[in-house]
Amino acid sequence: MTKFAAVILAAGKGTRMKSDLHKVLHPIGGKPMLFHLLDSFEELSPAHTVVVAGDRHEQLRDAVTDRNVTVALQEPQLGTAHAALMAKDALSGFDGLVMVCFGDCPMVKAETVRKLCEAVDEATKVAVLGFRPDDTLAYGRIIASGDGTVSKMVEHKDASEEERACNLCNSGVIIAHSKDIWRLLDGVGNDNAQGEYYLPDVATNAIAEGSRVVAVETSPDEVAGINSRAELAQAEAQWQQFKREEAMANGATLKAPETVFFSWDTQLGRDVTIEPNVVFGPGVKVADHALVRAFSHLEGATLGEHSSVGPYARLRPGAVLEEGAFIGNFVEMKKATLGKGAKASHLTYLGDATVGANANIGAGTITCNYDGYFKHQTTIGERAFIGSNSALIAPVNIGADAIVAAGSAVSRDVAAGELRMVRAEQMVKPGWADRFHDAMKKKKAAEKK
Amino acid sequence: MTKFAAVILAAGKGTRMKSDLHKVLHPIGGKPMLFHLLDSFEELSPAHTVVVAGDRHEQLRDAVTDRNVTVALQEPQLGTAHAALMAKDALSGFDGLVMVCFGDCPMVKAETVRKLCEAVDEATKVAVLGFRPDDTLAYGRIIASGDGTVSKMVEHKDASEEERACNLCNSGVIIAHSKDIWRLLDGVGNDNAQGEYYLPDVATNAIAEGSRVVAVETSPDEVAGINSRAELAQAEAQWQQFKREEAMANGATLKAPETVFFSWDTQLGRDVTIEPNVVFGPGVKVADHALVRAFSHLEGATLGEHSSVGPYARLRPGAVLEEGAFIGNFVEMKKATLGKGAKASHLTYLGDATVGANANIGAGTITCNYDGYFKHQTTIGERAFIGSNSALIAPVNIGADAIVAAGSAVSRDVAAGELRMVRAEQMVKPGWADRFHDAMKKKKAAEKK
Amino acid sequence: MTKFAAVILAAGKGTRMKSDLHKVLHPIGGKPMLFHLLDSFEELSPAHTVVVAGDRHEQLRDAVTDRNVTVALQEPQLGTAHAALMAKDALSGFDGLVMVCFGDCPMVKAETVRKLCEAVDEATKVAVLGFRPDDTLAYGRIIASGDGTVSKMVEHKDASEEERACNLCNSGVIIAHSKDIWRLLDGVGNDNAQGEYYLPDVATNAIAEGSRVVAVETSPDEVAGINSRAELAQAEAQWQQFKREEAMANGATLKAPETVFFSWDTQLGRDVTIEPNVVFGPGVKVADHALVRAFSHLEGATLGEHSSVGPYARLRPGAVLEEGAFIGNFVEMKKATLGKGAKASHLTYLGDATVGANANIGAGTITCNYDGYFKHQTTIGERAFIGSNSALIAPVNIGADAIVAAGSAVSRDVAAGELRMVRAEQMVKPGWADRFHDAMKKKKAAEKK
Repeated sequence: MTKFAAVILAAGKGTRMKSDLHKVLHPIGGKPMLFHLLDSFEELSPAHTVVVAGDRHEQLRDAVTDRNVTVALQEPQLGTAHAALMAKDALSGFDGLVMVCFGDCPMVKAETVRKLCEAVDEATKVAVLGFRPDDTLAYGRIIASGDGTVSKMVEHKDASEEERACNLCNSGVIIAHSKDIWRLLDGVGNDNAQGEYYLPDVATNAIAEGSRVVAVETSPDEVAGINSRAELAQAEAQWQQFKREEAMANGATLKAPETVFFSWDTQLGRDVTIEPNVVFGPGVKVADHALVRAFSHLEGATLGEHSSVGPYARLRPGAVLEEGAFIGNFVEMKKATLGKGAKASHLTYLGDATVGANANIGAGTITCNYDGYFKHQTTIGERAFIGSNSALIAPVNIGADAIVAAGSAVSRDVAAGELRMVRAEQMVKPGWADRFHDAMKKKKAAEKK
Repeated sequence: MTKFAAVILAAGKGTRMKSDLHKVLHPIGGKPMLFHLLDSFEELSPAHTVVVAGDRHEQLRDAVTDRNVTVALQEPQLGTAHAALMAKDALSGFDGLVMVCFGDCPMVKAETVRKLCEAVDEATKVAVLGFRPDDTLAYGRIIASGDGTVSKMVEHKDASEEERACNLCNSGVIIAHSKDIWRLLDGVGNDNAQGEYYLPDVATNAIAEGSRVVAVETSPDEVAGINSRAELAQAEAQWQQFKREEAMANGATLKAPETVFFSWDTQLGRDVTIEPNVVFGPGVKVADHALVRAFSHLEGATLGEHSSVGPYARLRPGAVLEEGAFIGNFVEMKKATLGKGAKASHLTYLGDATVGANANIGAGTITCNYDGYFKHQTTIGERAFIGSNSALIAPVNIGADAIVAAGSAVSRDVAAGELRMVRAEQMVKPGWADRFHDAMKKKKAAEKK
Repeated sequence: MTKFAAVILAAGKGTRMKSDLHKVLHPIGGKPMLFHLLDSFEELSPAHTVVVAGDRHEQLRDAVTDRNVTVALQEPQLGTAHAALMAKDALSGFDGLVMVCFGDCPMVKAETVRKLCEAVDEATKVAVLGFRPDDTLAYGRIIASGDGTVSKMVEHKDASEEERACNLCNSGVIIAHSKDIWRLLDGVGNDNAQGEYYLPDVATNAIAEGSRVVAVETSPDEVAGINSRAELAQAEAQWQQFKREEAMANGATLKAPETVFFSWDTQLGRDVTIEPNVVFGPGVKVADHALVRAFSHLEGATLGEHSSVGPYARLRPGAVLEEGAFIGNFVEMKKATLGKGAKASHLTYLGDATVGANANIGAGTITCNYDGYFKHQTTIGERAFIGSNSALIAPVNIGADAIVAAGSAVSRDVAAGELRMVRAEQMVKPGWADRFHDAMKKKKAAEKK
C-alpha cells in the first residue's frame, strides 16, 4: 500500500451537542470518537495524522499529547476545503496519499481506508467514499457509472430530479495523492450562498482537469455523522450491537444481549455467561467459564476461569479474581486480589488487599484502607476466616487459617492459626426494652394529642 | 381564547386492567393518567373541570381533593353521551366551550385543546378530534372534505367500503359551545344494538341541524387509549422515549437512552451524563456536569454541579448533594445533605443527616437515625473523617476535623479535632483457630459417615 | 388421542455454539431447551420419550436421570433419518404414533403435537410440520394442496423456481405410526452429495408408496432452530416477551416490560407492580398487591400480599416475606422468613433466620450464620428491634420486644423485653485528630517534594 497521511477535520463548533466538551471527544464504547478513528488508521501505519481544530482546539491538543498526531489550527472557519488546506504545512514534504475525513464520523474502518488508498493510481487521481442509505435525505449525490467512475458531484439542493433519484450519497471522505491534493484544494472557490470552500469541489475540479475520479462504496453505518447527543446514542447503540454479536459468536452466552454494555477493550472467553444488566467499563478480561451475574459493574477487572461475580458485584480497577474465586452481592473490590476459590459473598469492601486461596470473607467485612491521607494494604492468608461485620484496619496481616471473630475491628496483625476477637462484654438489662417501649408509646401518644 | 370547560369521562369499569385501582389513576412517568390530562389543560386555565365517574368513584374523589375539579356521578352507565350529560349540573351557568374527552386517553396536549377551541365559532358549532393511524382497525371514521368540514360520522361496523377507505379516525374527543352542547347531547338517542347513547351522535345531530362540524387532526400517539396493562406499558414507553429525546436535545448524554427511566418532573442540566440503567422517581433535579452512574435510583434528590453518584446509588427524598459531592456504590441517602466535596463512597446509610464540606464517610458507616419510635439527627462537621464500619447513634454531633476510629459505635458527641474510638481490647488466642479447624473437620467427617 | 412416543434428535455437535455444554442443555427462561420439549410433551402423557444423543451423550444422560426418558446413542452420525432409527430398539414393542423432532428446536407446543397426532389416520400415514416464514431463506419446501395433502418434499437447493415461490417450509418435525415409521426410515437412502440419510425422505417414500402425507402448519416462532448463541438469545427474547405479555394480561403492571426477566416458573398475582430492571430466577411466587422495585433479583422467593422489596433487593432461595413485610435496598435474604409487617430496610444480610411480625432490623445488620463449616439459625421475636450495624452470631435467639443496641455483636440469647448492648467504652482523645491532620499534611507535603 502506498504511504498515506490522514487529515481529520474537527474544527466545527458542535453546537447541537450543547456541551462544553469538544464533540469529537465524546466517547463511544468508552473511547473518544476521535480515538476510534486514530486506532482504526493505526492498523495501516499512517505516515502522518493531522487533526484540524478550531473551536476548543486546546481540548484536542491535550487529548492527543500521547499520540503521534499534529494539531493544525483553522481560524477563521471557511469551509471543509479550507479546513483541509490547514493541514498542508504539517504535511509539507510528505509524498504519498492524503485522506481527508471527519472527526465526527468516527466509525470508518481500516479496511475502507485501504480500499480508498488502492483506488488511487496514475489514471485515477481522486477517490471519494460513497454510501447508499435507506433514505437519501438531503445528502450530496455522487453521479457515477457502473465501474465507479464519477461524472459529477452534486449538492442535494442543486441536484436535478434525475440526480436525486441516484442513491449513491457522498460521505465527504476523499483521498488524493499529495502531488495533486494541495493544487486541487487551492483551486476550490467559494462562489456559493454561504461563501464557503467545499471539499467535494476537489473531485469536481479533478474531473474538470480531465482526471478520473472514482467512488468507493461502504455501508451507511460506517459513515454516519454525529451532530447531536441523540446521534451519539445511536452510534453507541450500533457499536454495542456489534460487540454483543461478536461476543456471542465467540462463545459467550448473553441472556439479554441488549442489556449488556461493553467497553472498546472488553475481552471475554468461551462459555462465559453474562446475565442481564451488566456494564463493562474499560480494561476488563473475563476468562473461560466465568459467570457474571445480573447488575454487575466491572472496570479494570480480571476474572479467572470458573470465577463468579454478582449479582451486584462492583469491580473497580485492579480487581483480580483467581480461578474459581467468588464475589457475591453488594461487594466492591479495588486493587485487590482474591485467591483461588476464595469467597467474599456479601456487603463487603476489599480495597488494597490480597486474599489467599480458599479464604472466606464474611458478610459486611470492610478493609479500612484509607486514613484520610494514605492508602494501606491488607493481607489475608490462605483459608483464613474473617467473621462478619469485621473491620480490618490496614496496614494489617491476617495469617493463614486464622479466624477473626464476627464484629471485630482488627488493628494489629493476626498470626496464622490464631483467633482474634475484639468484642466488648455482653451487657444485659432485663426488662429495659419493655420499659423503653412503654415510655416511647406514651410519648408518641402525647405527640398526637 | 374563549373560556372553556373540560369534561373528562372516567366512568368505565376498566375490566381489562384487572386492577383494584381505578384505570385513570394508573401512572405514566410516575403521574396518574388523569393528572396528565389535568396538568395539560391547566396550561389553558379552564373555567371548570368535571370528571365523570362511575365505578370506584370514591378513588377519583380522593385523588382530586387538592385539584379544582368536580366529580360527577354516572349511574347507571348508558353510554358516552349519557356520561357527558352528567356534567351538565356541574356546568350550569357556565357560558363557553365545553370539551369532552376521556380519562384513559391521557396524552392530549394543551396545544390540541387550543386548536379545538379555536375551531368552534358562530358558523361551526362542533369540532371533533381525528387522527390518521397506520392501521385504522375498527375505529369509527370521520368523513370530511379538504377544509375539514365533516359530512358524516360513521362507526366502523356501519361503514361502507368507501368510507372504510378513509383513514381519518375519530378519537372521540369533541367540543361545542355550552349554548349548543347540552341540546345536542339531549338529542342523542339509544336506538342501536347496545342501547347506549353515543357521543359521536352529537356531531351527527349537529350536521342534521344544518350546522357545520369540523375535524381537527392530531397524531395517533396523542389519542391512544389505554385499556390494558400492555397498552399502559406502551404509553409509558412512548412517554419515556419523548423525555429521553428531550433530555438529549438539552445537552445530556444518555449512553443507553432506552435504559433510563424518567419521572414526569425530572430536571437535568447541561453536560449531565447518565450511564445505563438509571431510574428517576419524582422530584429529582440534576445540575450541570453532574454524573449519574449505572444502576442508580433517585427520588426527590438534588444533585449539585459536578457531583457524582453511583453506580448503585440510592437517593431517597431529601437527599441533597452540594457541588462536587460524591456518593459511591451501595450507598443510601434520605433527608440528608452532603456538603461540597464530601464523600460517602461505599456501603453506607445516611439518613436525617448533615455532612459538612469535604468530610469523608468511611465504608460501612450507618447513621442510626431511628429508635423504633422517633427519627433523630446526625450532624458531621467539615473535613471530619468517619472510620469504616462505624455506627453514629443519633442524635449525635461530630465536630469539624474530628476523627471517628473504624468500627466505633458513637453515642455521644465528638468535639472538633477530637479522636473518638469505641473499641474493645484485641483478644488474642494463639493456636485456637487451628484447634477449631481440626475439631470441625472431624465433626464434618463424622457427619458424612 | 392415539398413544404417542417422542423421539428427540440431539446428536449434533452444536459447533457454532462454541460451548463445552451440550447445545440442548443451554437454558431458555432458566430451563434447558430439552426440558422445554419434555415439559411440553408431558402435557400429553407420551408413552415413551427417546433422546437420540451422540457427541457429549453423557451430559444428556446426567441431565435426564430424573426424567422418564431413554437416551439412545447414534454413532457414527449419518443423518437425521439414521438418527431417528437409533430410537427403534428403545421403542420395540411400542404400538402407536412416533413423532420425531429436534432438541435444538425447543418451542414446539403440546397443542401442535396433538394436531400432528390427530392428522395421522388409516388413510394418512405421515404428517409433517410446516411453517410460513417472512423470509424462506434456504429452508426445504413442502409442496402441498389446499387441504394439506403433500405432493412433494424438496430441498431448497433442488427446488425449481416455482417450488421456491411456495412459502410453506419444512420444520423437519414428522410423525407416523409405529407400524409404518421404521419401514419408511429403513427405506431412506443416502444417495446424495453428503452421503447422509435425510428424515424428509420418510415423507417422500410414503408418497411414493401411494400413502397420503399431510402438512400441519404452525407459526415460525414455534419451530425456530437454535444453532448459535445469537439464536439462543433471540429465542430467549421471544420467550420473555411472551411471559411479559402473559403477566400484564393477568393484571400485573410492568413499567418497562422489556427490562423484566422471568423464569419459566415465575408466578405473579394481580395488581403486582414490577418496576424496571428486575430479574426473576426460578421458583418465585409473588402474591397480590406486592411491589417489586427496580434492580431487584429474586430466586426461590415467596412474596406475601402487599409485601414490598427493593430497590436492590436480593432474595435467594428460601426467602419468604409474609403479608406486608418490607425489604429495602442492598438487603440479601436466604432461607429466611420475614414475618407480617416486619422490616429490613438497608444493607442487611438475613440468612438461616426467622424474623417475627413487626420486628425492625436496623441498617447494616448481619446474621452470622456460617462458622466456616456449619450453618446456624437466628430467631428474632415479634416487635424486636435490632439496632444498626449489629452482628447476630448464630445460633442465637432474640426474644419478642427485645432491643439490641446499635453496633452490638450478639453471641448469646437475648430474652424477651431485654436490652442487649455490646459496646466498648467511648475513648475520647481531645485534639488528637488535629495533631494527626497536621502530621499527615506534613508527610504528604514531604512526599511531593
